[in-house]
Amino acid sequence: MSSDSPDTQSLDTLVQALRVLPGVGVKSAARMAFHLLQHDRDGARKLAAALTDAVSHIRHCRSCHTFTEHELCHTCADPSRDRTRLCVVETPADQAVMERTGAYDGQYFVLLGRLSPLDRIGLDDLGIRPLLERACDGVVQEVIVATSFTAEGEATAHILTESLRRRGLTVTRLARGVPVGSELEFVDLGTIAHALADRR
Amino acid sequence: MSSDSPDTQSLDTLVQALRVLPGVGVKSAARMAFHLLQHDRDGARKLAAALTDAVSHIRHCRSCHTFTEHELCHTCADPSRDRTRLCVVETPADQAVMERTGAYDGQYFVLLGRLSPLDRIGLDDLGIRPLLERACDGVVQEVIVATSFTAEGEATAHILTESLRRRGLTVTRLARGVPVGSELEFVDLGTIAHALADRR
Ligand SMILES: [Zn+2]
Ligand SMILES: [Zn+2]
Repeated sequence: MSSDSPDTQSLDTLVQALRVLPGVGVKSAARMAFHLLQHDRDGARKLAAALTDAVSHIRHCRSCHTFTEHELCHTCADPSRDRTRLCVVETPADQAVMERTGAYDGQYFVLLGRLSPLDRIGLDDLGIRPLLERACDGVVQEVIVATSFTAEGEATAHILTESLRRRGLTVTRLARGVPVGSELEFVDLGTIAHALADRR
Repeated sequence: MSSDSPDTQSLDTLVQALRVLPGVGVKSAARMAFHLLQHDRDGARKLAAALTDAVSHIRHCRSCHTFTEHELCHTCADPSRDRTRLCVVETPADQAVMERTGAYDGQYFVLLGRLSPLDRIGLDDLGIRPLLERACDGVVQEVIVATSFTAEGEATAHILTESLRRRGLTVTRLARGVPVGSELEFVDLGTIAHALADRR
């Protein structure tokens, strides 16, 4: 899809650069580049600035591993949270859903992913070691595994549960009130609150 | 999919900024942002630089409307090209395919799109006025319409042909050797060369 022309090097470079985005092949990348140059140069400039800004400001919370601009994220820095319970979620969006139920006031650990052999995301990428260290701080008594009820989320939950129980921690899983096969983010809050109360 | 957290503003801004890309909704944008921050910060930096570079360097060729870093693109600046024939293509990629057939040595006009009511791309966006001006330079004798043989490409060809014939130009279309429903870019070169010879 490259124009193969000697005077469009910056366009060819842009098409290649867009392919770092997951799910974007060479044809989509060219369509994106053409669209931006043809219809939305201001959007392209803003995207460049947002990328630079996020890469330089966003890091991982020292305690829960989520994305944050500070050393400790907003939730971990909150002294009113119950430090004896740790809820393991896949993404910041899942954490936000848990928060909105109003049914949980403990701490979190954000995996930022789940086991996915297809995407070559293994245990190391999921940061299981930081989670084990975090859970074994001597204060946490219960780890609530709130990964999605998909095949991959269940596989992640299984491995985490085994590793954490071996270290003497109480491990629970959200009750199966959450419909099997669904992603947490799109479940209604009442169901999640119920599943949290019924955790086993 | 936003984390709704007060300390991830640059992440939220990035997710919004990614939505300028065609076909990218809020969920894809969040997945892209997480992927870049988690696995490919170097790629994100390169993408930012490529966007900035392309937006500031790429403009439209004064003669054929394609993307170029100069006032005249490589092809238009070539004095050995036959200036009596003008081939209208949809994209730089289609132009590159025409070139690789080795069967054409005339000039081009690159629409950078085709008629697409769904995408709200009308005649003005396609730059039909610059094309009419270009075709009526007094040197061009034949316009070869090489838009795709899709419904939208055919509609574009129909409108272009009518407008150009009204101005007294000879207008031809690639012969139907090109399989109906296919995009020019993915057709084998022999078929395209044959269709070019059989143009009607
Ligand atoms: Zn945190
Ligand atoms: Zn040109």
